[in-house]
Amino acid sequence: MKMFEIVPNFSTSDRSVINGIIDEIKKYGGNILDVDADKNHNRTVITFVCSENIIDLLYNMVKKASELIDMDLHRGLHPRIGATDVLPVIPLLDSTMDDAVKISKIIGERIGNDLNIPVYLYGESANSRYRKEISYIRNTKFQYEDLKMHINDKKYKPDYGPSEVGKAGALLVGARDFLIAYNVYLNTDSKDIGNEIAKSIRYKNGGLRYVRSLPLFIENDNMIQISMNILDYKKNPVYRVYEFIATEARKYNLSIVKSEIIGLLPEDAVTSTLNYYIKSNLNSKKVLEYNILTNNGYK
Amino acid sequence: MKMFEIVPNFSTSDRSVINGIIDEIKKYGGNILDVDADKNHNRTVITFVCSENIIDLLYNMVKKASELIDMDLHRGLHPRIGATDVLPVIPLLDSTMDDAVKISKIIGERIGNDLNIPVYLYGESANSRYRKEISYIRNTKFQYEDLKMHINDKKYKPDYGPSEVGKAGALLVGARDFLIAYNVYLNTDSKDIGNEIAKSIRYKNGGLRYVRSLPLFIENDNMIQISMNILDYKKNPVYRVYEFIATEARKYNLSIVKSEIIGLLPEDAVTSTLNYYIKSNLNSKKVLEYNILTNNGYK
Repeated sequence: MKMFEIVPNFSTSDRSVINGIIDEIKKYGGNILDVDADKNHNRTVITFVCSENIIDLLYNMVKKASELIDMDLHRGLHPRIGATDVLPVIPLLDSTMDDAVKISKIIGERIGNDLNIPVYLYGESANSRYRKEISYIRNTKFQYEDLKMHINDKKYKPDYGPSEVGKAGALLVGARDFLIAYNVYLNTDSKDIGNEIAKSIRYKNGGLRYVRSLPLFIENDNMIQISMNILDYKKNPVYRVYEFIATEARKYNLSIVKSEIIGLLPEDAVTSTLNYYIKSNLNSKKVLEYNILTNNGYK
Repeated sequence: MKMFEIVPNFSTSDRSVINGIIDEIKKYGGNILDVDADKNHNRTVITFVCSENIIDLLYNMVKKASELIDMDLHRGLHPRIGATDVLPVIPLLDSTMDDAVKISKIIGERIGNDLNIPVYLYGESANSRYRKEISYIRNTKFQYEDLKMHINDKKYKPDYGPSEVGKAGALLVGARDFLIAYNVYLNTDSKDIGNEIAKSIRYKNGGLRYVRSLPLFIENDNMIQISMNILDYKKNPVYRVYEFIATEARKYNLSIVKSEIIGLLPEDAVTSTLNYYIKSNLNSKKVLEYNILTNNGYK
């Protein structure tokens, strides 16, 4: 079964606006897994999956958001350039990254042409290297208001749609892999050590290619948490991240107290990590429920 | 969602007979995961899951097998007492063991009354302690032919149906937990060491309560395999079995080369084992595909 996870970020935290968007997602068969509205960011992240009608679903969802959200009135902590600010398309089950890239381009073109919204491709869908990361067009110092003034610069030419920013702003759409949010707790309250360990695994400081990390002091536990995003769990599997932190911790005579997955993680991230520890040969199809629910019966 | 796994064993390896039975299972909505026909045993194990029409499905499946298989003509290595020899009912997803016991008793009674087949409850469905294990009525020395002669002994009085054995023989039906078949390979070819290690973990010899084990010499790998059945993976989790064998192996300066799951294992067996190694908090619902495919959408 081909399936995609979609994690759109909307520039609103207004419950009635969110409900309007949710209705649109459900109308086209989207299965909503999570809705996370943040008042300070004035931003809402909706996580859903879908396997059919995906183009119509995404088009009508973005259309609805563009009707309900006026970017000229939007204020919030998180950087943003549009009503539907960013639209990641993640391949699941039998879908490939190519499938997700294709969808992001079809929907990008349709939104650009029919809704007159400037559309930028990012991630695996990006047409040039510098557009892979969102930060080239959206960061704390360059947002909706700035894009409005500078969209005619060659650097900001949209991949689809007009070089003109209306009240719905612009849209970033792109295919990417599933991201795992993973936290590891250490038996110390030392922020300095937390900093050192977070640095050791962080890509920017010479660590693992697909890991972003941040040391946090968790008051409730009186412990340091290394908060991480694993951007590519196939290339940086969970066990390697865990063992990496464990190894660094030993340098300070520390050990890992617990770890936690925030949100969800894919079946193959679970089985591949387990395989490391028990030297086994598992894959998703060996998991009873996965097998039951994805197969179409004995041939 | 309530769901059951059913793993009936039929006294045949004839493809046309098997197909007749498979058609019956499919007709009532059974989702067949695996069919394993063994010529030497002259026996076929069908693994399927179902969530609706379960009583009608099981009744018609057993009826079909009783029409197609004549036990007076059956020969095979594996001990057997009936056409449908054993019918295990395993609770999955939201089903409980009580649900499975209830189903085994309803179907047992109906088969006994309407098909005139003697039915014996075993496993969690057993009405007395000595009937929990199948071996009291079916073993290498007591099979279909013997039951025919001795069914009037008090010891063999059926739970349902007549005290008379026809050409379809008798049926064992019972609820049980999911069984994990798990093999661990050691870097030795010594059968003596294999014997010792298999003994150390085997319940019968003082080992883990829910583990059966057998040492096998695997020619292809030139290695000893400890072949195990984990009868209750909640009480004897996979990690504990693995670490138990690893610990015993060290006694002989040996280590585990690889391990393998035969067939399928449930999601919670995977997450609970992973939790041990990375000190995490996973459960089935944290696994993306499990969550997608079992939830009914955002409330």
